[in-house]
Amino acid sequence: MRPDLATPLARAERLFAELADLSADAPGVTRASFGPVEDAAHAMITREAVALGLDTRTDAVGNLYVTLTGQDRDAPVLMTGSHLDSVPHGGNFDGAAGVIGGLVLLEHLLDGPQPPCDVTLMAIRAEEMIWFPEHYLGSRAAFGVLPADAPDRLRRSDTGRTLADHMTEARRDPQAIRDSRAQLDPNRIGAFVEMHIEQGPVLIEAGCPVGIVTAIRGNIRHRFCRIEGETTHAGGVPRQSRRDAVLAGVELAHAMETYWVEAEAKGEDMVLTLGEFTTDARLHGITKVPGLLSFTLDVRSQDDTVLALFEHWLQKQARDIAERRDVRIDLGPYTQAAAAPMDARLRRGLVAAAHACGIDSFELPSGGGHDCATFAGQGVPSAMVFIRNENGSHNPAEAMDLADFGQACAVLCAWAGAYLKL
Amino acid sequence: MRPDLATPLARAERLFAELADLSADAPGVTRASFGPVEDAAHAMITREAVALGLDTRTDAVGNLYVTLTGQDRDAPVLMTGSHLDSVPHGGNFDGAAGVIGGLVLLEHLLDGPQPPCDVTLMAIRAEEMIWFPEHYLGSRAAFGVLPADAPDRLRRSDTGRTLADHMTEARRDPQAIRDSRAQLDPNRIGAFVEMHIEQGPVLIEAGCPVGIVTAIRGNIRHRFCRIEGETTHAGGVPRQSRRDAVLAGVELAHAMETYWVEAEAKGEDMVLTLGEFTTDARLHGITKVPGLLSFTLDVRSQDDTVLALFEHWLQKQARDIAERRDVRIDLGPYTQAAAAPMDARLRRGLVAAAHACGIDSFELPSGGGHDCATFAGQGVPSAMVFIRNENGSHNPAEAMDLADFGQACAVLCAWAGAYLKL
Repeated sequence: MRPDLATPLARAERLFAELADLSADAPGVTRASFGPVEDAAHAMITREAVALGLDTRTDAVGNLYVTLTGQDRDAPVLMTGSHLDSVPHGGNFDGAAGVIGGLVLLEHLLDGPQPPCDVTLMAIRAEEMIWFPEHYLGSRAAFGVLPADAPDRLRRSDTGRTLADHMTEARRDPQAIRDSRAQLDPNRIGAFVEMHIEQGPVLIEAGCPVGIVTAIRGNIRHRFCRIEGETTHAGGVPRQSRRDAVLAGVELAHAMETYWVEAEAKGEDMVLTLGEFTTDARLHGITKVPGLLSFTLDVRSQDDTVLALFEHWLQKQARDIAERRDVRIDLGPYTQAAAAPMDARLRRGLVAAAHACGIDSFELPSGGGHDCATFAGQGVPSAMVFIRNENGSHNPAEAMDLADFGQACAVLCAWAGAYLKL
Repeated sequence: MRPDLATPLARAERLFAELADLSADAPGVTRASFGPVEDAAHAMITREAVALGLDTRTDAVGNLYVTLTGQDRDAPVLMTGSHLDSVPHGGNFDGAAGVIGGLVLLEHLLDGPQPPCDVTLMAIRAEEMIWFPEHYLGSRAAFGVLPADAPDRLRRSDTGRTLADHMTEARRDPQAIRDSRAQLDPNRIGAFVEMHIEQGPVLIEAGCPVGIVTAIRGNIRHRFCRIEGETTHAGGVPRQSRRDAVLAGVELAHAMETYWVEAEAKGEDMVLTLGEFTTDARLHGITKVPGLLSFTLDVRSQDDTVLALFEHWLQKQARDIAERRDVRIDLGPYTQAAAAPMDARLRRGLVAAAHACGIDSFELPSGGGHDCATFAGQGVPSAMVFIRNENGSHNPAEAMDLADFGQACAVLCAWAGAYLKL
């Protein structure tokens, strides 16, 4: 029942090594969105696809599609894939594992009967938000759902130059985004399954090589929270006369953590992060009551209702604390990304495929966002396979075992075989 | 009963204006310790003292003594005074009010019978710790109690040059500090009364122009507290697997504030300030669980026992939180300054003098440190008179009303008249 993947996995291993080499930027790798290294990664996949005799196509915004043609070219396509860019000095596998894994699937299918529909691997552009501050840039551009002003508004964090500029330099067409021109039709896609390394430690702790994702958590992000009190003398001002921004922030943060613990106790899915929490170095000092605190807040949940209730509570809590402590609490604007529940039928199929292969799998939410959320948001039945990975992602210590990658590929191939009724 | 101070106060007003002018450094004033502007301030006081026919003397480290000679030159001296340096872009009155106020006292006494003992105004060097990181530099040098290595160890924050260097440039003798050579004998001082602007809002809130200080609060200062957890992905890592440095710091800070509120409810004197509280900008980000937090802690009390008990509790609390949250909490080294209770007889005398003048006064602790603590630490009967002051000190918005200064001078003069039995 377990597919024999020796040949495609040998190719995958070689490709991971080549990719690490072409994007080496010690420590780790760097593949900037719409940069020459991302281009080189796409060229590598194209070269392998051509060598395997597969169709390749690149859309106006630079996403690559590698297709094994099916018997009925009009039947809804089975798609897989992920992105090829990386964060600066990141790990080699974040994103790339899902692209190279898709190639494993196609090479495996080449060995069998022609599938009833096209099977397409999509190598997606520009998923890492650190370059351009927009969720799922490449996949949303493919569906024509990016804001029309994105090419001229978004600037790359390292160069300060616009997306349009970088796309043009990479011989892509920003006008396609300005015109909301779709490169993909969701009605023409039967299913999308993205394979990706896990970005947290859950599979490591569970001792499972493969995870099946229940949902991609939505998030609420406050990037510019600010508490203004009054900077005064640390010795001479009594407690009741202080307008201490740090102690106000501490009370709010402590209340948030208490809320979180209680939400979990009620069985609600939620994570909460105050990633920046800082007094202002130009003003603060050991003998001054701090008058200014800035912080960021990132809250995620599989359940949009949990997020909405938290936000409502947070705004009220901030008002109460501000009034009681005579400080100004400005939570600033916030962005919201909806949670993306994975397709129940695909999830069951993937769990069954793992079981049939004799591979331990584990169902878990995805804390990080993934292109798969774009497909789910377009109404495409979507699912994700996570690969066990040590030390988190977005850092050079990221450590996926190739044996675990092989297990995940086996699950993907077994599931595809069943889905395609081969 | 209330002394007529019209002439000396007119001189004081002129001197405040001249001082603001010679040390103007918009916004506010700057008189760096052992810098040419501090020298100019000392020269201004010397010039006025000479014009009034008073004795002047400068000691080896640069403190200025202006003396009205008494009938018995061997009798213990009545001393008053404060410092003439300021923080960068500070206010004009912090320190200077006590020096110019001392000149008001001497000019007033010149008008009456010769006092039984010498009355000396001391214009003290280098009180503001922001220049050289050592408490009460000038007054401790005067008593020969600075560490012998201070001239060669301490560097001025703006220039990076040593105290010895700056003293030599100002034609002072750092060797006197290296040799612990005393310039003053505490047994020869009958009393020291320092007049100073209040650095907090207590007198403003109480509606009193004059305060009589109960004690100068001691302090415990942790300058380098550090919490190390683990920087991980904000989405993918469940709460139980996180080692969040910010939430650990928030718990500790929240516990400290709760302790503070409870200590006050028990009638204990205490203030507590987390002046810096900050994630590391090189590592943090909205989508990363923060792995590092730094903060400072300044705790003050009139009661050294309150400080010692707090420190003991804090160390235990930090250990408990570190263990429970699997983070490292390092509170770092800390410095301690003992509380300095003011002399009970002098306090009673000052309260009585205010009452006799028909001036509202208010007893309060001093949150900030003052040279007066050095005199108290040397066993000299010591006291302080606070002048109402708006907007705190150490900033250009500091705002003492000259009418309040006149009230404080009246209290000082009335008290001195009673003390000297004139």
